[in-house]
Amino acid sequence: MSAAPNLSYDPARLAACARAIADAGRRLGAQGLTPATSSNFSMRIDAGHAAITISGRDKATLNADDIMVIDMHGRAVDTSARPSAETLLHTQIYARFPEANAVLHTHSRTQTVASRLFAGSGTIRLEGYELLKAIAGHTTHETRLDLPVFANTQEMPELVARVDAWIDSGQPLYGYLIDGHGIYTWGRDMAEAERHIEAFEFLLGCELDLRRLK
Amino acid sequence: MSAAPNLSYDPARLAACARAIADAGRRLGAQGLTPATSSNFSMRIDAGHAAITISGRDKATLNADDIMVIDMHGRAVDTSARPSAETLLHTQIYARFPEANAVLHTHSRTQTVASRLFAGSGTIRLEGYELLKAIAGHTTHETRLDLPVFANTQEMPELVARVDAWIDSGQPLYGYLIDGHGIYTWGRDMAEAERHIEAFEFLLGCELDLRRLK
Amino acid sequence: MSAAPNLSYDPARLAACARAIADAGRRLGAQGLTPATSSNFSMRIDAGHAAITISGRDKATLNADDIMVIDMHGRAVDTSARPSAETLLHTQIYARFPEANAVLHTHSRTQTVASRLFAGSGTIRLEGYELLKAIAGHTTHETRLDLPVFANTQEMPELVARVDAWIDSGQPLYGYLIDGHGIYTWGRDMAEAERHIEAFEFLLGCELDLRRLK
Amino acid sequence: MSAAPNLSYDPARLAACARAIADAGRRLGAQGLTPATSSNFSMRIDAGHAAITISGRDKATLNADDIMVIDMHGRAVDTSARPSAETLLHTQIYARFPEANAVLHTHSRTQTVASRLFAGSGTIRLEGYELLKAIAGHTTHETRLDLPVFANTQEMPELVARVDAWIDSGQPLYGYLIDGHGIYTWGRDMAEAERHIEAFEFLLGCELDLRRLK
Repeated sequence: MSAAPNLSYDPARLAACARAIADAGRRLGAQGLTPATSSNFSMRIDAGHAAITISGRDKATLNADDIMVIDMHGRAVDTSARPSAETLLHTQIYARFPEANAVLHTHSRTQTVASRLFAGSGTIRLEGYELLKAIAGHTTHETRLDLPVFANTQEMPELVARVDAWIDSGQPLYGYLIDGHGIYTWGRDMAEAERHIEAFEFLLGCELDLRRLK
Repeated sequence: MSAAPNLSYDPARLAACARAIADAGRRLGAQGLTPATSSNFSMRIDAGHAAITISGRDKATLNADDIMVIDMHGRAVDTSARPSAETLLHTQIYARFPEANAVLHTHSRTQTVASRLFAGSGTIRLEGYELLKAIAGHTTHETRLDLPVFANTQEMPELVARVDAWIDSGQPLYGYLIDGHGIYTWGRDMAEAERHIEAFEFLLGCELDLRRLK
Repeated sequence: MSAAPNLSYDPARLAACARAIADAGRRLGAQGLTPATSSNFSMRIDAGHAAITISGRDKATLNADDIMVIDMHGRAVDTSARPSAETLLHTQIYARFPEANAVLHTHSRTQTVASRLFAGSGTIRLEGYELLKAIAGHTTHETRLDLPVFANTQEMPELVARVDAWIDSGQPLYGYLIDGHGIYTWGRDMAEAERHIEAFEFLLGCELDLRRLK
Repeated sequence: MSAAPNLSYDPARLAACARAIADAGRRLGAQGLTPATSSNFSMRIDAGHAAITISGRDKATLNADDIMVIDMHGRAVDTSARPSAETLLHTQIYARFPEANAVLHTHSRTQTVASRLFAGSGTIRLEGYELLKAIAGHTTHETRLDLPVFANTQEMPELVARVDAWIDSGQPLYGYLIDGHGIYTWGRDMAEAERHIEAFEFLLGCELDLRRLK
């Protein structure tokens, strides 16, 4: 976040985004959702820029120096730092969901285990839970939410294509798992994105418990 | 909690209730019992009023501005804030149990999973646990406590009717689960209500573990 | 802990015991081992006295006012406070194990679940664990420790008799569970007693996990 | 860490190692990975010395006085303190892996349970997890890592021989479990060693969960 004479974005908005990202990281890390140096977080700065975590940092103890600016093609702006390897999954969300302003990717044991168990069927169906109302646009537990599980790959364009295919099919998308990996979800602001992470973590945990118990 | 010249309730009592609610929320939130913005809490101010959490707030970080006053019909008093959607379940407890002065509703993974597993039978029978003595009126582990699980609905009057029917049947009621949702319990004061939440959370967790192990 | 002109015990020793008890309670409570107002703790003051937690207090937030003095018959000394209902289980340990100076009783979900699962067989056999070395007198994992599970009763003299019978049979005793209840263990000092609690909690957790997995 | 006129090592490097060890212990202890007084940690000071935790200390609350210096034969240097009983497992890593500068041994319930479950087969195969990329040298989830489980013994030279045999066989080694015990892993620096502990703890937890669920 070095000062630059002719910045193409508003530095005050970047600073606010960096604070919101670091605060969310501290809370999510304390809940055990960001083991090792996994997970990555971003916020939309403006139509052409986003703030995103630099690759390899501990997400529970972020500060402003751990956040960098990218353009909406995922390229670093005004920095030689390297953004998260999964940057294109963030810019895709900003491109496909104009109302999304924060994207969170975490990597909990529950998320990883659920992704592996349901990778074969390709989706996890969530229904009958009051906490579905925590996902934007849901006003009753009498709903059904299909969370897709995409096959993992180190080739980001392939993952982007899998997410695009789901969206293009017309099915609603509130988040997704990647097999053997974690979850992506987003929100209008960081508070909503965090609420979505907490809700999906809870709902996936309930599904695993019920499967063990039934 | 705006100041009003002719308050119909004692503002000092409201302030004490708000502090007790926020303190309880902090402790219950730290135990993971209030994911996303779920859960709601209240205290009786006087015969005609209760303090209750405003809808949609994070229950682990409440302050006085997140607490509002309602009358015993669940209507907002001296505020344009919107009380919890489940307000009528709180006022029902104050109406049916004159000794109750605090009502807590939490929403843990254990509570939700137990509610779904036992929704079919309609009750969870708790017996043989020393910790049953933590529930008011129980002086030995040689007791039996039936915790009902009511079907969920977004129509509060229906839920109120289900709870009324249980009470009217003459069966004792110390708390109840709602299917796919959390628990309601209460106490003479906030300390007793919190002890009841902790005890039910513990006992439900034991029941799930024993079911997995036997 | 009111001041008395002719105390039958050393008030400085009592103060040190109360601090050690409160500190242990804070640590054990933070680990979730003392739900609701369960659990009780004591330390030997001298040959004729012990400091013990007053009944009904939250064990995670103890201070000096929550600790009282008893004699070795379990009677209150210089106070009208009521000691834990299970006081005789503490004085029994001081009588039967002269080297014991601290007794801890906790009540975790793992302890309660293990007690119910193994109540039928009457003991839990622990063997092959490196952490057995944390129990005083054990220098290798190639050992076998039988932890008894006694039937629960609200009649303390009956429980005392069950523990006496085990000791009188000549079998070693490092701690015991009560069915549907928690664990009792002890040590030369509070550090050793806490190490024993942590080790038994760990070992019982492993046994439950292995039973679920095998 | 007493001052000595002709130290054979750099006291500033020792102090830095002691701080890094204590900080790691605090974090690992807070995650529940060091029950009772289990676990031990070390760092390489120079070619001939390492800093290591003194036997029997609580690893979550270490300070400089809990860390001592050993030579690369595991003998105490400039102190009468007794190093961890497993010191030779640390010096072995420094001898066999010249790039390793920090060695961590923890003892979580997950590690102990996994070690017992997989002791028969002798290895735990980890594959298909994105978090394998947290282990040094792994750049894709499409990899396979075999974590050995060695039989436990109180005779350190025997354990050393088992580890040597694995390394001498030419199989890669990133860490290992000891049956009924915990894990050993290491890194170029403490941050990498900690990342490895966190990653193995996570991956072993996933394996246990999947075994329960499939």
